[in-house]
Amino acid sequence: MKSIISTDNRIIKLAASLSEKKYRDREGAYMLEGPDMVREALENSGKARFIFIRAESAAGEAISIAEAAEARGLAVYELSEAVFEKISQTEAPQGIAAVMEKPESSCESFFRACEDKNVLVIDRVQDPGNIGTLIRSAEAAGFGGAVFIKGSADPFSAKAVRAASGSVGRLPLLFVQSDSDMLSLMREHGKRVFASAMESGTVYYKADIARNAAIVVGSEGSGASRCILDAADAILCIPMDGKTESLNAAVASGIIMFEARRQRNDR
Amino acid sequence: MKSIISTDNRIIKLAASLSEKKYRDREGAYMLEGPDMVREALENSGKARFIFIRAESAAGEAISIAEAAEARGLAVYELSEAVFEKISQTEAPQGIAAVMEKPESSCESFFRACEDKNVLVIDRVQDPGNIGTLIRSAEAAGFGGAVFIKGSADPFSAKAVRAASGSVGRLPLLFVQSDSDMLSLMREHGKRVFASAMESGTVYYKADIARNAAIVVGSEGSGASRCILDAADAILCIPMDGKTESLNAAVASGIIMFEARRQRNDR
Repeated sequence: MKSIISTDNRIIKLAASLSEKKYRDREGAYMLEGPDMVREALENSGKARFIFIRAESAAGEAISIAEAAEARGLAVYELSEAVFEKISQTEAPQGIAAVMEKPESSCESFFRACEDKNVLVIDRVQDPGNIGTLIRSAEAAGFGGAVFIKGSADPFSAKAVRAASGSVGRLPLLFVQSDSDMLSLMREHGKRVFASAMESGTVYYKADIARNAAIVVGSEGSGASRCILDAADAILCIPMDGKTESLNAAVASGIIMFEARRQRNDR
Repeated sequence: MKSIISTDNRIIKLAASLSEKKYRDREGAYMLEGPDMVREALENSGKARFIFIRAESAAGEAISIAEAAEARGLAVYELSEAVFEKISQTEAPQGIAAVMEKPESSCESFFRACEDKNVLVIDRVQDPGNIGTLIRSAEAAGFGGAVFIKGSADPFSAKAVRAASGSVGRLPLLFVQSDSDMLSLMREHGKRVFASAMESGTVYYKADIARNAAIVVGSEGSGASRCILDAADAILCIPMDGKTESLNAAVASGIIMFEARRQRNDR
């Protein structure tokens, strides 16, 4: 295991730069932290470019993950406390981190993975915690993948990766430039588009969303765009009691995604 | 409208102290910020002790809310920028805030409000954002109230109040000392207790949870306590696809609460 004790090291500078989206995009890489996340990513054939372990105070679990990774020929570095702190983006770094290659994402491979499955469409959702939670729920509900319309927060940010609890890196993701690109892709691949609105629409459990549905989740403030609402095959609504005006975006989408899963498994 | 320009003012000190739970408990009060939250609370018969408006830069909407409140005889104060900043707990204060009385919460009135309705039980959930989101979902799903077991985060913190988007102050809340207090109260009032576990149990949509169900949401790390799992009338599980190990606590509970709502409205 090589040691790095200088924050000027090229690899350290690269790793630290991944806190910014433009460098994640340029490098095609992102950062994972903590033993659970790193172990899980390595087991699930995530490609690690570098693995870092904190020299003085790594937990036994972190050490055994790093040793196993080194035995497999991965590039593992031991960092001094100060150097580790420089790359870490979490408040309580747990002594192990990895720079992961972003999974390849082509339109073809995305829709091949999605077959007749449902797809989640993320339309300018801003909160990275919501983004991660949405990806996690989509994987758990058996969705084939998630499509990001330009203007959404980056799913590879540290906060989104943490909230996704391993699902970033597993769930196929596709990035598109606009609403209309998304709409024509969905048409082309036989997915019906369902937007949601709080006020009116088809009650979500009365719509057939078991298969080949694209469920659009709109931004926290303003919901799905006018263009998507107009072009959607149906508008879903979640009827509510009390005086609440809306649900949290991640909760609302979780309810609809798991209704889709229920329909698929119950019919 | 009286003006306050000193941060040493007694009322300002009180308002600023409400960022800490011990002072919220001692005063029986909590803080609301922003025109939407304040207007909504005043309309829904929340009791405001003081209303504060930022002198130099309040928006027109904030000013009209403050004027209407003053016309109703409420205590409205105009604060200088520096004084307003002292009481504000948000990063982008919107020029209006209110010190609200915590709603009274007795066991009797709580269960009267819950009649044959469902109840959400919060068992040591730590994240204030999750707490607020849970309360918001519970109101929207038509639950009668939420029970907090000691050790849960405070629903009256600024972050929880914001995530609840108005539901704190509307949904009846009850605070209990222990798991066993919660369990005996639920027995006494004819509520069946449903804990949830990720691994095994009754699939949530196959259990009858339309009415008189107490849905327990456990802490983010370790789920519901052993004691509750052992005493529960049933354990619910949410079957999942993929390699996700769990769902976000607020999402999982949202799914179960809205399944309960679906059952109630569909039968």
